[in-house]
Parts: sequence; structure tokens; C-alpha cells
Amino acid sequence: MMNEYSRAACEQLDLEDSLSEFRDEFAIPEGMIYLDGNSLGVRPKAALARAVEVVEEEWGVGLIKSWNQADWFSLPQRLGNKLAKLIGADDDEVVVTDSTGLNLYKVLAAALTQRTERKVIVMNGSNFPTDNYMAQGLLAQLGDGYEIRFAEHDDMEAAITEDVAAVCLTHVHYKTGRIFDMAAITAKTHEVGALSIWDLCHSAGALDVDLNGCNVDFAVGCTYKYLNGGPGSPGFIFTAKCHQGKALQPLTGWWGHADPFAFERDYRPAPGINQMLSGTQPILSLAVAEVGLDIFLRADVAAVRAKSKKLTELFIRLMTQRCSQYGFTLVSPEDAECRGSQVSFSHTHGYPVMQALISRDVVGDFRAPDNVRFGFTPLYTSYVDVWDAVDRLVDIMEKELWRDSEFNQRGAVT
Amino acid sequence: MMNEYSRAACEQLDLEDSLSEFRDEFAIPEGMIYLDGNSLGVRPKAALARAVEVVEEEWGVGLIKSWNQADWFSLPQRLGNKLAKLIGADDDEVVVTDSTGLNLYKVLAAALTQRTERKVIVMNGSNFPTDNYMAQGLLAQLGDGYEIRFAEHDDMEAAITEDVAAVCLTHVHYKTGRIFDMAAITAKTHEVGALSIWDLCHSAGALDVDLNGCNVDFAVGCTYKYLNGGPGSPGFIFTAKCHQGKALQPLTGWWGHADPFAFERDYRPAPGINQMLSGTQPILSLAVAEVGLDIFLRADVAAVRAKSKKLTELFIRLMTQRCSQYGFTLVSPEDAECRGSQVSFSHTHGYPVMQALISRDVVGDFRAPDNVRFGFTPLYTSYVDVWDAVDRLVDIMEKELWRDSEFNQRGAVT
Repeated sequence: MMNEYSRAACEQLDLEDSLSEFRDEFAIPEGMIYLDGNSLGVRPKAALARAVEVVEEEWGVGLIKSWNQADWFSLPQRLGNKLAKLIGADDDEVVVTDSTGLNLYKVLAAALTQRTERKVIVMNGSNFPTDNYMAQGLLAQLGDGYEIRFAEHDDMEAAITEDVAAVCLTHVHYKTGRIFDMAAITAKTHEVGALSIWDLCHSAGALDVDLNGCNVDFAVGCTYKYLNGGPGSPGFIFTAKCHQGKALQPLTGWWGHADPFAFERDYRPAPGINQMLSGTQPILSLAVAEVGLDIFLRADVAAVRAKSKKLTELFIRLMTQRCSQYGFTLVSPEDAECRGSQVSFSHTHGYPVMQALISRDVVGDFRAPDNVRFGFTPLYTSYVDVWDAVDRLVDIMEKELWRDSEFNQRGAVT
Repeated sequence: MMNEYSRAACEQLDLEDSLSEFRDEFAIPEGMIYLDGNSLGVRPKAALARAVEVVEEEWGVGLIKSWNQADWFSLPQRLGNKLAKLIGADDDEVVVTDSTGLNLYKVLAAALTQRTERKVIVMNGSNFPTDNYMAQGLLAQLGDGYEIRFAEHDDMEAAITEDVAAVCLTHVHYKTGRIFDMAAITAKTHEVGALSIWDLCHSAGALDVDLNGCNVDFAVGCTYKYLNGGPGSPGFIFTAKCHQGKALQPLTGWWGHADPFAFERDYRPAPGINQMLSGTQPILSLAVAEVGLDIFLRADVAAVRAKSKKLTELFIRLMTQRCSQYGFTLVSPEDAECRGSQVSFSHTHGYPVMQALISRDVVGDFRAPDNVRFGFTPLYTSYVDVWDAVDRLVDIMEKELWRDSEFNQRGAVT
């Protein structure tokens, strides 16, 4: 990392950046510094033409023939095989389908069928809670003594004991960006005879995830953050080969049937990853999500992670150098190895500060009670973006421009 | 209905058709007679501009702000309230979300929480089987003596006995187009103290469904058939007001939480119809589906149903008049009151006959073992379309043109 910080030095880093060519593939609004790709990734330019093609040609002209001719039926597998390369999975281990939450429900239910004698699920109560909610819905259905044991980073290993059926964690914390050590926790999970489930919402497309290298059993995630799939684009499921055909999920729709077009009366599970599918998929959202994945296939995942660390490191150093007198406290880990692709600071006036930034075209987000959160997407965020973002923040703090935003304090919702 | 059948008489019917103006709202491919709107509805012309707007403006420029500014978060409810008007539901009783199968799972699970002392579900084994599959997945989870009692039209009332928890039927049969009498069966269902669940996949947008008039408890359906929402566009859920806040579904994601943006650790159910939501929705598919619903809001549902009956009646009569010598047997009910908006015939060479028709731009579909199926969408199918379709079929049968198609007998998949 640099010793001196200047805009010129950032320009130099951009010149040396092997990923810089990817920025031109994205339609970043003019003048905007978008540091919220960890919530919703920006639009790949090619997504527009793809959407038009699906609507005008495949739907409009091809109509029902497109289920075969445009390969609509195989989108979950085709996208899954592309995504697999970004997360250390093999062919036929990933499908893109449904929402992350529904997928979490599926894999958790599937995992529990393999450990029926155990009743405890370990989760992380402070992370984005929809995974907890889905698990709570499932456990209430199963009844019969099931419980969730919530733990935080520091007491996680201690929580993983011989009575645990599954450990189900979000890899990168949505607020702090802190990473759980996937290799160590999965090893500990297996040591006690439990199964590991990872939620990769804040990892896929930003970290060099290695599911099979870590012997992970199941994983889920979304495609609309770092993978730039579009608003609410379908989530994904990873099931390790060793569990396929055995650990079955209960949302048994016709796309997960062994012979969907036989229209048999009774369900027979597809033997492979297809069993993780349920009903008919939203083709337009799914097809457009492929555009983001295709861009990633040309990028080196290790280079993405390396740049992610450099961007967040630069941001923290510039904040320390130029904003330390304004009351920001780093919430994210200082060690880049333990940090995802986002940086959060707490600040007493976090909400109006973020509003002031957004009104000056630096888009991050706010997470209650006092967190300002900045996401750095290696494919389209430049080092100069980081410099300019801090520059505008310095201006806001210096002139107390955030006071103007205090009058507009409605709840932050993204 | 006419006594004489001629193309001129069909032209006259089109001139008198109060719905004929709607045809121009749809992008029907040049020269195609599309009789498969019961599988995938054609594209409303306005869908293209809407898709471009969502991708280019709302996603591309608005980015995360669009969750509020473009009302992405309220799409399930907004579309639901529009759809409600087509199926006899009230405001705040319908949401558009997820797939039909997942929605069926939700409402069936919710219904069973209200009848815990009963273990029998009545279903129709010969209908499109994904509902059976979802029910089988749920019942396997619940264990403990639950069973499905399958019945057909003729023994349905007899199957609904005092031990039944829920009767879960697809309103219109996907192959035959035969209608279950919603009012009578729902009344019988309530008489024995059970709850009624209707799948409206082949009804919504074609029949004058009156859910509240029939005191239906729950319903689900899709938006990509007669509602022209686009390939795999999200399904819907109806929950009668009296069950909201009580009959809760178990796929408890954050969109169904009482306060989704409080990010509380534990699930608290939303009090109203929102509890039927689970995770983040595929916005592009959902937003485009609204275009089809908006067209319907300008149409009179009773006129739609009246035209549907006239179209299918005309088709059957023309087939009888002009094709009777070619071995077609009517599979659909003769009585229009008992028939949905589709007509099926069985034919020994059904598959090559349909292939020959499709290659001559008359698009219906084939359902094993020997059914040729034709769907009639009142908003864009003309009476002349019906004449011309039969005309081309006569030509195919007369000259035995279908024999050419026998060489291309791969499985029909739509």
C-alpha cells in the first residue's frame, strides 16, 4: 500500500489495475460514485440488449417454442455452471433459482434429513436476519425439540458441539463486512459430525470463495449484489456432489422431478442438483442475470479479491488520514484478510451524513443505528472513486453540510 | 351461436366483438394464429417499453433508490390489488410473488395449521401434477399420518368427508379444460368443516372467477398464461381476510416480517396478506407482469368469459362440421359452462398433427398420450383466427401432411 496518499497516486493505481478494463462494461450513471454494489450491483451495459432480446424475440416471437429453442428450461443449470467457477464449485453442483431465503430453507431442510438425531442449528443472530427467519419457519414446522443456537464471531467455535446438526452462517457480515473463516469453521463443523451451510450473498463475486476446497456441504447466495444480476434476480444453491440424491429438499415442484414432462401423478426426485429446483422460474430476471455472470467469467477471481482488499484498505487509510477528526469509528475489521468488500464506520450523525453524501452523488447506505456502509465492487470501482468519495465526505464534514440532511430523516430502507 | 359457418360469418362476429379493440395491444407474430395462450400468453406491446424502463432507468440510473422511488418493494401488493379485481377478491387479499408451486405449499401449510386434528387432503390426481408434488413434499415433512386422497370430477364430492382438512383443486383441468364447480365444491368443503384451496392457473384472465362470492379460503395461480405476464412471471396468492394473521405460512422470509427494515433477529409475522411473502422478488419479471394486468383492468371480465365460451364453442362446431371424418375425439366438455378457455381433442396421430399445424403457424400444443390442445385467449383471439385454424387443419388432414412430421417425433415439452 502507498505511503503517500494523493489523487495522482490513485490515478496511478488505476493505470496499473489489471481489472480496469471491466469498468467500461457497466452503465455507471454519469458523475456518480456508486459504493453500494453490495446492495444492488450496477447494470452491465449488455443487460439492456439482453432484456430486449428476451422480451421482443424470445417471448414476443418465439413464444412457447423458446422453452426449448432459447433454452429457457436450462437457465438454472447454465447459469449455475457459470457461477460455480466463481465460488470453487464443480459443474452440476449449482443452480440459479428462486430467492436466497427460499434456497436457504431448502438446503437447511435437506441437511436436517441427514442428521435426524440432532436438533441444534448454529446461526449468527446479528447478521442479516432473513436466514434466521427461514430457519425459524422450518424449525417451527419440524417441532419436536429443534432449536437455533445463536453465536457471534468470538464464541462461534465454542458453539459448535456434538449435538449440532448444521452450522448455517453468512460468510461476510452485512453490516461490518467481517468474514467468518470458512475453512476453519467448516472443519470444526465436520469434526463434531455436523453439516455446513454457507450464505454467500456478500461473498460471491467479491471474494475468492472455495467451497469444495473447504469441503462445504451446502451454500446459497444471491446474484444481484456483486454479480450484477439486476434487482431481485434469482438466488443460487450449491449442493456438494456427495449429498446429491440423498439430502432432498421438501419444496418439491415439477422442475425438481426426475422426469418433469412425464407429468406423473407422484413426485420422484431428480437424481442430481436439479432436485433443488421447485417451480417455473422468472425467465426474464433469470436471463438478464446471465449477463453479469458472463462478464465475471472473463475476470480472474484472485485478481478481484486482491483489488477488493486494496480498495477497502485505501478507503480506510484515506478516512484515517483525512477524516479522523470528524468522529468516525471503524466498524469493519482492520485486517483486510478478515474483511469482505465493504467498509462500515459508525458515526453519531450517520444517517444525515449518508444523506448528504448521496445528494452529492456518492452512494453508500446507512444501517441502523449509526452505520455508514460503503461497498467496493472491484469490477467497476476505481481507486480514484475512493479518493473522490473521501474528498466529498471531507467537504461535507468540514462545512457541516450534513446538518441540512437532518430535516429529512425518514427510515433508510435499502 | 350461428347456424351456418363461414369465414364471413366469423368476420361478422369479430365486428360485433366488444373486446376486439384489445387485439391491437398485443404483439402477435405476423401470420401466426396463436392458440397456446393457456401455456404462455403473448407479449403485450407495452411490455417492451416497460422492460427497457426498468432496466435502463430504474435499475440503471435509479439503482438502490428505486426500491422506494420506483416502488419496487410494493410491486407484490400493487399487482395483487389489480389481479384481485379479476378473480373476485378484495384489496389486500392478493399478492403477486414467487412461483405457483411455492405459493401452493404456503397456503396448504397455512390451511393445515387451522385444522391440526385432520390429516386428509383431497386433490385431483389427473391434473397438472406440480400441486401434488408440493403437497407431497409438505406432507412428508409433517409426517404423522397425513395423506392425500386423490379423486376425479365424478367422485369428488364423495371424497370430501368429515376427516378432510383441506380440498385443494385446480379449477380448470390442464388437459381437458373441464371446470370444477367452485361454488358447489367449496360449499361441500365447508359443510364438512374443511378449508378450500383453488389453483387458478387456467382460470385467471379467462373465467369470471368469484373467490369471495364462493367463500374460498385460499387460492394461487400464475400470471404467464391468460394474464400475459411473460415467461415464468411470478405467481399469486389469495388469502381471505378471515384467515389473515391466523393461518400463517412457514416460508418466513424478511418480506413477510411485520417490520422488515427493523432487521430484528427473530421473525414476527406481518399481520395481513404480506405474511404470504418470503424473500426478495425478481423485480424485472414482476414489473413487466404488471403490463398484462393493466390491460385487463380496462376489460370487462364477464365479457371476457362470454367471448371465451363463444370461441371454444365455435371451434368445436367447426371441428365437428369440417373435421369429423379425420378421427378427432372431443376430450373437453361439450357444455361451455363446464369448459374453460381451451379445447382438447384426442387423435391417434396427435403429435405429428400438432407439429404440422405449428409448422403452418397455427400454434397449439400436444399433451401425451394423444391430446391436441388449443387455448383461446379472448383478449387477442379473433373468430376468424378460429376459422383459419380449422381451415389449415382441414388441409393438413385432407392431404395427410402430418405424415411429414412423424419423422421428427421428439418429446413435446411445453
